[in-house]
Amino acid sequence: MTRNPTLIVAPPALADHAARLGNLLDGLLSARTLPGEIERPERLRAAMAHGVLGGGKRLRPFLVEESAALFGATGAAILRVGAALELIHCYSLVHDDLPAMDDDDLRRGQPTVHRAFDEATAILAGDALLTLAFDLMTSEETDLPADRKLALAGGLARASGIGGMVGGQMRDLEAESAPRPLSASDVETLQSMKTGALLRYACEAGAIAAGASTDEQSRLRRIGEILGLAFQLADDLLDITSTPETAGKATGKDADANKATLPSLNGTDWTRQRLEQLVEEATGLLSPFGDKAETLVQTARFIAFRDR
Amino acid sequence: MTRNPTLIVAPPALADHAARLGNLLDGLLSARTLPGEIERPERLRAAMAHGVLGGGKRLRPFLVEESAALFGATGAAILRVGAALELIHCYSLVHDDLPAMDDDDLRRGQPTVHRAFDEATAILAGDALLTLAFDLMTSEETDLPADRKLALAGGLARASGIGGMVGGQMRDLEAESAPRPLSASDVETLQSMKTGALLRYACEAGAIAAGASTDEQSRLRRIGEILGLAFQLADDLLDITSTPETAGKATGKDADANKATLPSLNGTDWTRQRLEQLVEEATGLLSPFGDKAETLVQTARFIAFRDR
Repeated sequence: MTRNPTLIVAPPALADHAARLGNLLDGLLSARTLPGEIERPERLRAAMAHGVLGGGKRLRPFLVEESAALFGATGAAILRVGAALELIHCYSLVHDDLPAMDDDDLRRGQPTVHRAFDEATAILAGDALLTLAFDLMTSEETDLPADRKLALAGGLARASGIGGMVGGQMRDLEAESAPRPLSASDVETLQSMKTGALLRYACEAGAIAAGASTDEQSRLRRIGEILGLAFQLADDLLDITSTPETAGKATGKDADANKATLPSLNGTDWTRQRLEQLVEEATGLLSPFGDKAETLVQTARFIAFRDR
Repeated sequence: MTRNPTLIVAPPALADHAARLGNLLDGLLSARTLPGEIERPERLRAAMAHGVLGGGKRLRPFLVEESAALFGATGAAILRVGAALELIHCYSLVHDDLPAMDDDDLRRGQPTVHRAFDEATAILAGDALLTLAFDLMTSEETDLPADRKLALAGGLARASGIGGMVGGQMRDLEAESAPRPLSASDVETLQSMKTGALLRYACEAGAIAAGASTDEQSRLRRIGEILGLAFQLADDLLDITSTPETAGKATGKDADANKATLPSLNGTDWTRQRLEQLVEEATGLLSPFGDKAETLVQTARFIAFRDR
């Protein structure tokens, strides 16, 4: 399989989905107080909205939606499941940007939450977004059978907690103060937790929400794992090969920070070859779904070979 | 009703419950990685354990257990519901102690998590505890019907999120930088969110977990609300009337911080009278349960008239 530049575009459905998801999130973060709540402090609500609205590809909820669609499931409940996952992703960005963590002033060209508001507000906004994700996933308004909602909420917790995303962030912090760069194996574990766990869960969640069999859930979990690996490899490769103008963000950051990545350890040729393998593997796992999987196949290529 | 000093002791069941809950939390925070998790970083696990284990009255899960017992429900699942609530309480303490928030170095005589570890680890430990709470509440091992677990998880999210505990913490931060002390009405709203929401939910959660009717859930919710009011009034009264030796912690903090509380606004006589009213109201609401409510009645008196 050779890389075909004409296919390296975002699937058209991605932008349509992002608009629908944005509307849902906007509604959830509007000022109204929900039953069971007392009052929503306006400044906290605004900080949460700042951390969630206004940008982002919404890749994780898009994977939920396209994975569910493989089994014929579409609609508002699937979008809500994706929104819960996106809230978890967004809270993690708000907390990762804090001065005690990565200390970032800008995200997507806008001031980070602790810069636009203050540090305490950013901590609380992250906490409230995390909490809102589980509210949304378990809500009566999320019209799915009770056992599926429980499986979805539990899976989200496992993917994002100490043994998943948060644990991966901890390993990343530890790597920064380690005496030498990580081995390839340690890098793989770190990334499978920090960014891989949520992407893997996104595809699995689509299958769970659609009521797919456990075998089919495992297949989607594996597809999500492959997409997660490709996502991170492509990100790390762009950091080496791209310019800030093309990437739309600073590049060369990993080398400056003496941070080990698989492309830095194994080289760019190995990385491109590995990306092609991963796309091929995902395409093979998706082949039983025929035309229904067309968008996911295109998404896999986009994730692997995007230029930003 | 007059205050009877001989009754102002902790209910004997409180210590027994705290020991059982401690064992459960200890097991949850031991090193093993759960299915669906990748790996648990040891330093993060240790920080979580530091923030949860080793002390605390475990009042909230005790209220869950005693409220469920009113309807004849006891056992491991009820304890797990209480443990989920306690994890939320503990994460909020870890984050509240952070330098950007209350900047506390000590809690229960031990270094706070960010002092014992570091600030980034404390942020992540809080995030992971919050996440673990929802994992526990929605887990297959929590042996309750699916609809009850969903109602419990949703209720926990509403009680602890932007419209509850986290929103109350936000109001507290805003009050500190406000040009003048809050009015009594603003203090009541703040406290009903910051400390009241979880205590109210504790009693309601016991009723939900036990499968009680919605009328009975409302009754327990109201009882929890009264206990929350009494808890905060007693706390604020002790800050005025007690010595550090008796209270076991610094006193006079609210006056030093020029912080409005109901006892500081309305006086100590009003406060003692209000506490007696609240205990009487709770006792009345509990009277239909007869002997089964004896421990909760004693708990109400303990909450209102404790000396530390």
